[in-house]
Amino acid sequence: MWTLYYAPISCALASHIALEQVGASYEAVKVDFANDAQRGPEYLRINPKGRVPTLVTERGILTETPAILAFVAQSFPRANLAPLDDPYAFAEVQAFNSYLCSTVHVAHAHRMRGHRWVDDPAAILAMQEKVPQTVGDCFALIESEMLKGPWVMGDAYTISDIYLFTLARWLEADSVDPGRFPKVKRHRERMYEIPAVRAALAVEEGSA
Amino acid sequence: MWTLYYAPISCALASHIALEQVGASYEAVKVDFANDAQRGPEYLRINPKGRVPTLVTERGILTETPAILAFVAQSFPRANLAPLDDPYAFAEVQAFNSYLCSTVHVAHAHRMRGHRWVDDPAAILAMQEKVPQTVGDCFALIESEMLKGPWVMGDAYTISDIYLFTLARWLEADSVDPGRFPKVKRHRERMYEIPAVRAALAVEEGSA
Repeated sequence: MWTLYYAPISCALASHIALEQVGASYEAVKVDFANDAQRGPEYLRINPKGRVPTLVTERGILTETPAILAFVAQSFPRANLAPLDDPYAFAEVQAFNSYLCSTVHVAHAHRMRGHRWVDDPAAILAMQEKVPQTVGDCFALIESEMLKGPWVMGDAYTISDIYLFTLARWLEADSVDPGRFPKVKRHRERMYEIPAVRAALAVEEGSA
Repeated sequence: MWTLYYAPISCALASHIALEQVGASYEAVKVDFANDAQRGPEYLRINPKGRVPTLVTERGILTETPAILAFVAQSFPRANLAPLDDPYAFAEVQAFNSYLCSTVHVAHAHRMRGHRWVDDPAAILAMQEKVPQTVGDCFALIESEMLKGPWVMGDAYTISDIYLFTLARWLEADSVDPGRFPKVKRHRERMYEIPAVRAALAVEEGSA
């Protein structure tokens, strides 16, 4: 039995959905960001980064969404969540996920987590001002160049769809109009129809 | 024959070293950042993100360091650059690489690429001021929690070593004293002795 540590509305939702999707035996444990539990000694012993997601397995502790998503896909190959037997196709999935974690999530994080990179309050405000543009630019690239349709990789549904959905849910809060990105918007709507997505969201929204 | 597009002293060095290490048949092509070639129409047709690395293969074009490194390892399994048959051990490699791309590289990028996230010149300066602290904090975590020694994953040399070396070379430029991190420093020194590392550096430094 694995344990997933998550915070509602965070990127941990992607790992949560993936675990639901493959039918893994796991427990979801909420980390109370409102009370800074992610920086408390108890949680830091589990994940010294003080972030979510964290996946505790019988082998050890894993962090970082792209790593956890690929691990879940590889641990449950029959769920077909990634092209595991084709290094090039797998690399395409990984490249997409890497863009989400290193560029899209980072652009978004400058709205609420500016203190990570700067101390001056005026600079934090200046960062927040640019978020609609930077996040919008990322999704413009996803819309025009990366989302093949109907799923990210074309006909095959993969962990990249789960991850894209997770970050695309933040668009309105980042003051980006999803109407600018019809493919991303339709993708997000289709994702809401998937039972594993509904199940993970029900748990997270119930705990929020 | 593959083509790697790189810029000297960039994170593309990791892909460059990995290609050398496995004995891939490839050509290394420098993208002239000094003349903003990465934003020119010719390069944007290859990689619309306007970044390096880009790896052109017979199947298509790959971007993002963690994806390219895993792809090279999977394409040349006999080079043993990743634990390909053990999903958990592979996930540990991926988690390390994901931390480097989404946290360490991003912390570093606030020194020279602050314009990505803010327009105000005073805010860009404020970002630069915090870089020694944020990059230093990242390497403190790598030193104390992540680098098992002698290699990142312990006894096995992997793509994580190549990637760590690539970013650890930026410490001095980020005003972080490598002397604070004896394990990272020794790791970096050992990496300089590897022929594939020397070969990639010779090409990049010759073209710089």
